[in-house]
Amino acid sequence: MQQVERSWNMLKPSARAQVSLNPIRNWVEQVVPEVEKTGKSEGRPEQKIVFLLGDPTAYPKFQTPNEYKEIVANSVGKIDGYTDFFGDFNVRTQLAEVLSSHHRKLEADDIILASGGSGALFYATLALAKPGDKILMPRPTFPLVKAFADFYGIQVVFYDLNPGTWQVNIVELEYIYEQNPDIKFILVNSPSNPMGSELSPIALTEIVNFCERHNNLPIVSDEIYENMIFEKREFKFISDYSKTVPVLRCSGLTKKCLVPGWRLGWLALYGEGDTFKEVKKALRNISNILLMPNTICQAALCEVYKKSLDIIPEKMEELHSRYKALHHGLHDAFGISVGETKGAMYSTLIINAEEFSDIDTSIDFAKKLQQEQNVLVFPGELFYGEKFVRLVICCDLEIIEESMQNRIVNSLHIDHKESVNISIGNRIKNICQTYFSTLF
Amino acid sequence: MQQVERSWNMLKPSARAQVSLNPIRNWVEQVVPEVEKTGKSEGRPEQKIVFLLGDPTAYPKFQTPNEYKEIVANSVGKIDGYTDFFGDFNVRTQLAEVLSSHHRKLEADDIILASGGSGALFYATLALAKPGDKILMPRPTFPLVKAFADFYGIQVVFYDLNPGTWQVNIVELEYIYEQNPDIKFILVNSPSNPMGSELSPIALTEIVNFCERHNNLPIVSDEIYENMIFEKREFKFISDYSKTVPVLRCSGLTKKCLVPGWRLGWLALYGEGDTFKEVKKALRNISNILLMPNTICQAALCEVYKKSLDIIPEKMEELHSRYKALHHGLHDAFGISVGETKGAMYSTLIINAEEFSDIDTSIDFAKKLQQEQNVLVFPGELFYGEKFVRLVICCDLEIIEESMQNRIVNSLHIDHKESVNISIGNRIKNICQTYFSTLF
Repeated sequence: MQQVERSWNMLKPSARAQVSLNPIRNWVEQVVPEVEKTGKSEGRPEQKIVFLLGDPTAYPKFQTPNEYKEIVANSVGKIDGYTDFFGDFNVRTQLAEVLSSHHRKLEADDIILASGGSGALFYATLALAKPGDKILMPRPTFPLVKAFADFYGIQVVFYDLNPGTWQVNIVELEYIYEQNPDIKFILVNSPSNPMGSELSPIALTEIVNFCERHNNLPIVSDEIYENMIFEKREFKFISDYSKTVPVLRCSGLTKKCLVPGWRLGWLALYGEGDTFKEVKKALRNISNILLMPNTICQAALCEVYKKSLDIIPEKMEELHSRYKALHHGLHDAFGISVGETKGAMYSTLIINAEEFSDIDTSIDFAKKLQQEQNVLVFPGELFYGEKFVRLVICCDLEIIEESMQNRIVNSLHIDHKESVNISIGNRIKNICQTYFSTLF
Repeated sequence: MQQVERSWNMLKPSARAQVSLNPIRNWVEQVVPEVEKTGKSEGRPEQKIVFLLGDPTAYPKFQTPNEYKEIVANSVGKIDGYTDFFGDFNVRTQLAEVLSSHHRKLEADDIILASGGSGALFYATLALAKPGDKILMPRPTFPLVKAFADFYGIQVVFYDLNPGTWQVNIVELEYIYEQNPDIKFILVNSPSNPMGSELSPIALTEIVNFCERHNNLPIVSDEIYENMIFEKREFKFISDYSKTVPVLRCSGLTKKCLVPGWRLGWLALYGEGDTFKEVKKALRNISNILLMPNTICQAALCEVYKKSLDIIPEKMEELHSRYKALHHGLHDAFGISVGETKGAMYSTLIINAEEFSDIDTSIDFAKKLQQEQNVLVFPGELFYGEKFVRLVICCDLEIIEESMQNRIVNSLHIDHKESVNISIGNRIKNICQTYFSTLF
């Protein structure tokens, strides 16, 4: 009999299960504690300022609204048993109505409910691509779809967004397509994590035209930050720009309704006629793997979503004031600039490494900021990008005003070309570094 | 540029997404309506009796208890944000305490929360096996793990349970292992879906010894029906029989607490010392794909689970009376016998096809029962088995008493060796054939 390798003392997981699926987690669990232990500079401020926390409910101004809690508590008992694994028919019917636009009327059939926006992206990805297939993803990107792809054996091809404006470079996109005409779909994400950017109407049009030119390449649109834009503008969905290109819109309540714990998302299919006929069958088939999302939250979905349309603009005004403070605070900083920010809950600092003698990468920058200033940000490398860091801007306004305006600018200015000795004082608040809530 | 096949009219899903993942769904959606349309016999009773519905809450006696609903409604707001993707630390700490036994003390670290028992099985499977690997599964089996395996490219090797008693044949198991020494784990499921059987202490001991002989082959134990056994006996966990064999116990609230909609399950790791050290890392890594289960139900988990320990025995008495009626009703039937039933919510009819002139398979039997008697059962083939049909026994006692005793026996007796002309009259109730709730 063949000899089997299996230790008596320690069980070995499968090789695939050991492929690291979350670079952010590694940073938080390994790099941050290591820097904390070994790299702390003399005279570093005691109070930590953490711009990592991607959980809005971790911040005072972005708690789950009580009215949502009441709605969900009242939903208990409405659906006790199994629903269709792709979601309760009545809930899908209602959501289809809510998500219908002037351009496209949806029906229950066009909706797949899933466990969070991540569940919707999981379904969309696996319905369209199999192991060995290629998919096209923006860079920088939130690492979730990359994780599915790595785990399942799908090959990711990146298209780079223009640094700072974070719009698409359609010439590069054409070039990449020419090299990879067998890609299965293009992923877009607007408003974006990690950038807080928004694809302009021109960019949306260009992407749709690009897809149309290439035999209606499907678009998977990660819209978890849908409607979360500044200045009370109307949010533009990429599906509204498409006549023939199939768009799979992936969204969820998580961010826009401030309910990360609920895990309720959906996939909405925007296509002409029978475009999605076979894909719908495949999606229903795949839903047999994970089954349906929690029915208590399913029953609350439409009421909460509709209420959020009123609540989001006021929350976005809060975030806009923070972005303005960030921008104002850093407008004359040397060596860094603020990336264009239009929504979501993030902002980027673009790093001109050439301006600094001891910084080559944004990893260097992030480590130095922690070492010398006790300020925590995520380097762009965690999002497969470079030369930027991500800041979550949900913290209290005063923290941004103080930490940017009075400290970072002056410090960068003085120590320009010598070292990043950024002294951030007058910290308003010590935000605890909560590991689990840093992951988005 | 290479020509890409992509229809302008209809988007093609990936080949993998089209591999049928749920034979039960296909039966309900295709075979049942087809038989209904084409095969209905003359004189068939009008009222349908459906033994398919695997959702306990679809039956009057097995509704979600109100006290569970109160607990979960009161849990809203306890955990709003993200938790660890493998579950909230406090909830895992409490559950570890609840699941600790005399044999093994668990800690938070040994628990992974997941979306339902299916989520736990998904994690266990993917942590231990990668595409191309082999896993060992009982036959008959509920088709869920087979679905993951097919979708992910894991090869399933079956071991057959003894028909009727549904215990293991350890000689066959040894033979299979000899042919497949590279299998990654053995799946066990007791109490069982589809059989309602329970592995005896002897069977559990034999399986553990088998695994120990083979270099501590890990056991993945599907315990979604844990504690659901007749006669108020104490349920025996396979982990209690193991000293060195690692056991991954997969469970959830779904069936035992009558809350299919909640989607809350867990994976509990029973192993000595550092057995699971690397596997835990892998499981946490994989949890980045699906994220954590709904936090409202996480917060309610332990209270509901503990309460269920009191409620389950009384519910099992209800089911036991149904099983006894079934057994009594069919004890002298020709051509069929009742499989040994000890718990869960299912029972099997073992078909001796040789006794019938027009029945070769249990598919024939199930179709005939629908055609001639308007009685719906699932054939064993849907569970990769043969020569049996599955009955869910949650319906009202009178339905079983009437449909078995007065009708099936007499009909089988009279029409024995001619045709299965089973006339079931005096139907108490017309249970609507609800598609979505038939799938378990």
